This record gives sequence, C-alpha cells and structure tokens, in this order.
Amino acid sequence: MKQLIKNVHLLTMDTKMTEIKQAYVLIEDQTIAQIGEMTEELPEADVVTDGQGGILMPGMINTHTHAGMIPFRSLGDDVPDRLRRFLFPLEQFMTPELVKSSTKYAIAEMLLAGVTTFCDMYYFEEEVAEAAVEMGMRGFVGETIIEMETCDFKTPDDALDWTEGFLKRWSNHPLVTPMIAPHATNTNRKEIFERIVAMAKRYKAPISMHVAEMTYEMTEFKEKYNQTPVAFLNDLGFFNERIIMAHCLFIEESDWSLLHEQRSNFGIAHCIGANTKSAKGVAPVKRMIAEELNVGLGTDGPSSGNTLDLFTQMRMFANFQKTANEDRSLFPAKEIVRLATEGGSRVLGLEKLVGTIEIGKQADLTLVETQSVNMFPIYDAYSALVYSANSSNVSDVWVQGQHLVENKQLIKADLNVLRENLANEMTVFVAEAKKRSEAI
Amino acid sequence: MKQLIKNVHLLTMDTKMTEIKQAYVLIEDQTIAQIGEMTEELPEADVVTDGQGGILMPGMINTHTHAGMIPFRSLGDDVPDRLRRFLFPLEQFMTPELVKSSTKYAIAEMLLAGVTTFCDMYYFEEEVAEAAVEMGMRGFVGETIIEMETCDFKTPDDALDWTEGFLKRWSNHPLVTPMIAPHATNTNRKEIFERIVAMAKRYKAPISMHVAEMTYEMTEFKEKYNQTPVAFLNDLGFFNERIIMAHCLFIEESDWSLLHEQRSNFGIAHCIGANTKSAKGVAPVKRMIAEELNVGLGTDGPSSGNTLDLFTQMRMFANFQKTANEDRSLFPAKEIVRLATEGGSRVLGLEKLVGTIEIGKQADLTLVETQSVNMFPIYDAYSALVYSANSSNVSDVWVQGQHLVENKQLIKADLNVLRENLANEMTVFVAEAKKRSEAI
Repeated sequence: MKQLIKNVHLLTMDTKMTEIKQAYVLIEDQTIAQIGEMTEELPEADVVTDGQGGILMPGMINTHTHAGMIPFRSLGDDVPDRLRRFLFPLEQFMTPELVKSSTKYAIAEMLLAGVTTFCDMYYFEEEVAEAAVEMGMRGFVGETIIEMETCDFKTPDDALDWTEGFLKRWSNHPLVTPMIAPHATNTNRKEIFERIVAMAKRYKAPISMHVAEMTYEMTEFKEKYNQTPVAFLNDLGFFNERIIMAHCLFIEESDWSLLHEQRSNFGIAHCIGANTKSAKGVAPVKRMIAEELNVGLGTDGPSSGNTLDLFTQMRMFANFQKTANEDRSLFPAKEIVRLATEGGSRVLGLEKLVGTIEIGKQADLTLVETQSVNMFPIYDAYSALVYSANSSNVSDVWVQGQHLVENKQLIKADLNVLRENLANEMTVFVAEAKKRSEAI
Repeated sequence: MKQLIKNVHLLTMDTKMTEIKQAYVLIEDQTIAQIGEMTEELPEADVVTDGQGGILMPGMINTHTHAGMIPFRSLGDDVPDRLRRFLFPLEQFMTPELVKSSTKYAIAEMLLAGVTTFCDMYYFEEEVAEAAVEMGMRGFVGETIIEMETCDFKTPDDALDWTEGFLKRWSNHPLVTPMIAPHATNTNRKEIFERIVAMAKRYKAPISMHVAEMTYEMTEFKEKYNQTPVAFLNDLGFFNERIIMAHCLFIEESDWSLLHEQRSNFGIAHCIGANTKSAKGVAPVKRMIAEELNVGLGTDGPSSGNTLDLFTQMRMFANFQKTANEDRSLFPAKEIVRLATEGGSRVLGLEKLVGTIEIGKQADLTLVETQSVNMFPIYDAYSALVYSANSSNVSDVWVQGQHLVENKQLIKADLNVLRENLANEMTVFVAEAKKRSEAI
C-alpha cells in the first residue's frame, strides 16, 4: 500500500540534517519510498494525509521506561525514599493483567505524544511484548532481574531462566526486540551478571540496566570493590555485548577513556526529568557527547517522570544542560531533537532501521501540527519543537508504515476502553496505595 | 446572572488548603457566591457547566511577561547575548498595532492555558491595556522606562510623563491596573528612579522592574555604588511603595534581613523557565519562602520563556528547586500550585480579590479536565497539576465571572482571526528578523 504525506515541513535528521520546508513523503508498505518538494509532481498513493504545514519528524524514541507503572502515577511524588516506601511494597500487587493493561495505556500515551519506539524493563514482560504487538508499537522489552522475590519470580535465576525462553520466542520479531534486563549494578550478585553476559553473547541480545544512578550505588561500589560501576561492568565483559545504560549520572574521571573506547557497544538512556524530580542531579551529557558516546532521551517510568512524552524531556534537557554548564548556546534545539530521534536509534542499535527520515528506512513518523496557539510564529522548526511544543501538538503517527494516530486520536484502539480496562485491574492496587499514602 | 459549575474536584487554595473532591461552585455576576458538596441540593442557576470530575482551581497568575513579544518566539533561542543581537535592534520595528495584535494573541494563549491575570511591561502599553479589556483578561500593565530611545519614546522622561497620564486614565479600572515600569536597576539613572518613587507614592501605583537578573548588573552595582541592587532600591525608597521585582536571581546575604523586614511591600516574580533557558541560574526561592517573602511564578516574555503557560513553569520549578537544593521532598506539589495562584495574588497585592476560591472573591477560575491520556490516575490533584498536566488540559476559564474559555475554545475571540491579524502586522518585523538570523 502507498501512503502519501504531503504539505509538511520535513526534518529528516539525516547526517546532513536535511530540512525541506514544503515537502512530501511517500510510504510504501512499511518503508519510506520517496521524499520530495511540494513543487514536484506528487506520486500517486492509496491514502493521502495533508500535513497542513505541520512538522514531520522521525518518530521519537523513548530509550528508558517502565510502562507497567501507570498505576503509580501521582502517588507520593514528593516523598523521600519512594522506592522503598511505595514502589517495592506496592509492586507485590502487580499481576500480569495489570501490567498488560498499564502497558497498553502507556503505549497509547506515547503514541499520542509522537513516540514510536520504547525501551522497557519491568515485570511480566511477556505481556509487555504482547501489548506492543497489539498496539502496533516498536519495543525493546526485558524482564527485570533482581536479587529479591518479585511479583513475577522468586529468584534472579528463575527470572533469567525465563528470559532465555523469552529471547527464543521473540527472536527476529518485526516489532519486538527481547532484552536481558538486570535491575541495576548493585542489585544483583556477580554470578548472575556472569550468566547474563554469557546469555547476551549466545543470543546476541541487548542488555538494559540502571547504571550509576544512585549515590548509595556509588558508595557501595567504592567500599565493596574499590571501583566504579562502569569499570565493574567492563571487567565482567558487558561492553563486549550491547548494553543500554539508563541514567549514568555519576561518571568518574577514570571512566571516560574506557567509555570512549567502548562507545560502539553501548548507549546511554538519559532521563533528565526523572533525575531532577528526584533531586539526583544532571548527567554530564556535554562530556558524553564530547567523548562521542551514543546518547538518547528517556522518560523513565510514569512514577518517576510522570509523563511519557519526549517534549517535556527535550525542554527540561535544554534548560538543565544550559544552566549546569552556564552556557545558553550549549545544545541548540537542533541537537536536542537529534537526541530524541537519531540519538535514540543509536542507543538501541537501531540506526539502520529508524531514527531518521531516509529512503529505505522504516516509516516511523511523527507529525506535529502548527495550528495551536503555542506554535506561532516559527522561525526555526527545531526551536518550536523544543521550546514551544507539547505532546498535545502531535497530530499523526506512523509506526512501520502503519497509521496509528490520526488527527490526535488513536486509530486502532479506543482510549476510553484502555482506561476502563486499566482502572478495573487497578482496584486492589489502589486500595493498598491509599493505605500507604494515608500512613505517610 | 448565576452560573453553576458542578461536579468538580475543587482546590480552593484558601489558608486551610480546603479541598472538596466532589464539589460545586456558584458564580453570581462577577463573584463567587456559594461553594458546596455535590451531595447537597444544588443551587439554581442560569447557566450550568458540568466539570465531569475535572479539577477546579483559582485562575493562575502570570506575574511577569512581555505580551507584545510574540513576534520574537523561536527566534535565536540558543544565541548568546540575544538581548543585544536580536531584541533591542528588532524592537525598533515595533508599532502600536503590532504590540496590540501580539498582546491579544498572547492573552488568548494565556487564557487557553488557565492564566486569568497577567503582569506586563513592554512598549505601547495603552494598547496592552486596551487588549486586556477587549479580551476580558485581568492585567497589570506598565510602560517600560529605559535610558535609551525606544520604539515608543525618545527619553525615559518622556515615557514617565506619558505614564503619569496613563495612571490617571486607568485608575480604578475593574480589570486593568496601571503600573510604573522602569526596565531594570541598571538601565535608568538615579534621577529617573527618584521621579518614579515620587510618582508611585502620589498615585499609589505599583512598580514593576527587573531586579538582580544579570551578572553584569551585579558587577556594575558593586563597582559604581559598592552596594547590591536591592540595597540601592531601598535607599531610594522603593520599598515604601509596592514593587513587583522580576527574577531576583542574585540576592546577597546582606539583602535578606532587609527583604524580610520590608516583605509586606513587595513581591517577587520568579521566572524559572526563562532564567534557566538563558543559563542564568536558579533563584534562591527556598530562602525567599523561609524569609516569608511573597513569591509568584512568571513566564517572562515569549522570546525568553517561549510559552506563556504556568504548567511548564510549575514542573520546571519542582525539578530545578529539588535538584538545586538536593532534596526531593522540597516544595511538594501543593506548595507549587499555591505559588501559581495565591502566591501570585500576593505578589500583585491582589490577595483580597483573587488567587483563592472563596465566597466573595472575584470568579477567576480555571477548570482542568482529567479525561486526557496524561491525567490518569490521580491520587493527588496537586501532583497531577504539577507533574502530569500541560496547558492543553485546561478546558474552561472564567475571569471576573465571565466565561472566556469553554471546552478548550475561546468564547469571545477567534484564534484564527487573532493569528491572522498578528501575522499581517508582523510582515516588516519578520523580514528584518530573517536578515539578522541569516547573519548569525
């Protein structure tokens, strides 16, 4: 099938950062088949979308989230040590049905905000993978492996055994990439990490993990191993595989040369909104970019970052990085939009498939309307995306050529039904959450 | 006329922070006449709005902006010294018609985002006042007085002469409060400041000014007067009048006792988005609150802060203050919503009129819908406003009892017409702006 998107301000995000102010894009089945100027004769198509001068950009890539955690949103946001006071205790009330309905809802939210790929680690990830397929979303999906009993598995070995089957079941799926997802550098023992590296090698599976996120993680490593989490991972052979490291807030001087050397084997999921809401700090992204590391943006889960759109992250990123580095010209808007798209694709190792608008790539596309009050005037489309836009400006979204959002509405799913299903599954969880809230 | 707003989650923001989860509010003409629970018999009314469980809060108060600057939005956002490279040179192309159409557009944007009062300083402020009245918006309005030739006046004395007439013409207007608006502490000479203080005293007029915003301002004061801008203003008698100080980024230790002492005579318009986008820093709001100062939130102009909604500011505020103070529990969401409403009313000295939902107060109200994907679940309505909501969630707005926004649309004005009028007035400006952009 041929779909024509015409009359758009095109940001390709290719290596030349090609921008065509009055453009069309032709999708043929799943891929981008043709790109041109509106002055040319337009190709024939089965379906035509008139972009009305909106901004067409590559679908955004959310490199780190926990889509199953919608039930936690707006719960105990400003409470210290929320992880141990709310998250861990309430997670025992998670069920496969709750995770699945939460994930479908979260995917709806991401699609409506122009996100076309998400990288997820949580529990009941079989259901997360199924949710991605049912919603038509591209997903990197991994079951959390952690040294404690979870809602899903009694031990990390059990979780890892299950993960092996998961990797086999979902290998070569067109939308879902299965991952191995150890929780964090300090929440598993060495033997588990060794099994993980061996499994990653055997199945060529990506690994996703929280790295250098917590001050206590850093102290523990210093005391226990007298080394940094990054050096620890290197010793275990993680950088011989493909690893997606979330956060990386605390990179020590000794880590940089190692990271620079190994840069083709990992990506960093930078979650500025979650990092700063929890007062943890601002990751050294200026240095990361100087060291040529792959950096993308992530929302973190809806309990940490609340919303799952990358517009909020882009604006936060600009303001935090400029302020932390005392330089208003640092990270111009164009570079920030690159991080949210092409940068994210490199973090996941998907750069040959998505992240830019080029002929032959998958048609993962986001159209941002410019009719809303906040979107006028536009001298610079990148500036408008970073500083003016919010998620409600997204009008149309395609994933793998499938038109999933049209005129700000989901096409394949009904938001009210998704919300109702989720609310039904949340009954026990909400009762327990309220008990804990009132006890604070 | 009686208007009933029923079926809302009411945040009154009164001194007890009264919250009614299923409430109604009755407006009688311009004021709030009755507040109650949905279980009661509902009062009769001429018009009924069903809030459908949305959050009803006091209209938000934007304590600092330059509404005439919409033409600058997305222009040179990441360029150093933008003030001298873009703003000052391009302001010579400002006309009364351009400022008026820009201000009407900016007011539309603010109303659609739930802002019901704005505090403005720019040029051609007669037109700004007229725009406020035509749009039905509550405004504090002052002509910029600065030691240079502007688009409006040859000298600060001319601007001040004009301001005297302006204060007389608009005295006791129900929506517009005229102000005296010296540009900044370092951009006028002492004699002008002395005239300003005398005029403020004579007309009981509020003063609005940029204070302690620039590092070069601080250096100049140190070198020229060997004192801080705050001490300088005190010596001139500014704190005997009512002054709205924008920014106050650089408060020195010696200023605090003075500020605490004079706290009933001034307010601080804190503009976190603009301050951090320009890499200036994070104002010491924790200390300001500890010293019992009146603090409100401001967007700054659309060239500095880009969007004119306070949702963006609330979320930025949370993340920046928590991170700067390394404390995730600092400024819980409830306190941030207070700054955006009641806090703003105190900054303007309007606390008897607006800023809370209480019987007898003006009906300046904002209804935030909770049907959009980002607004579920809600355990804490304040958290949902600060961390989940964006401006597109505002569904209805009343100013002084007048219903101005209904179901996300302007009632009295047509956004397309406002945009078209503004675009028509912008022709010369845009041509000059593009020349300067290309020269960078």
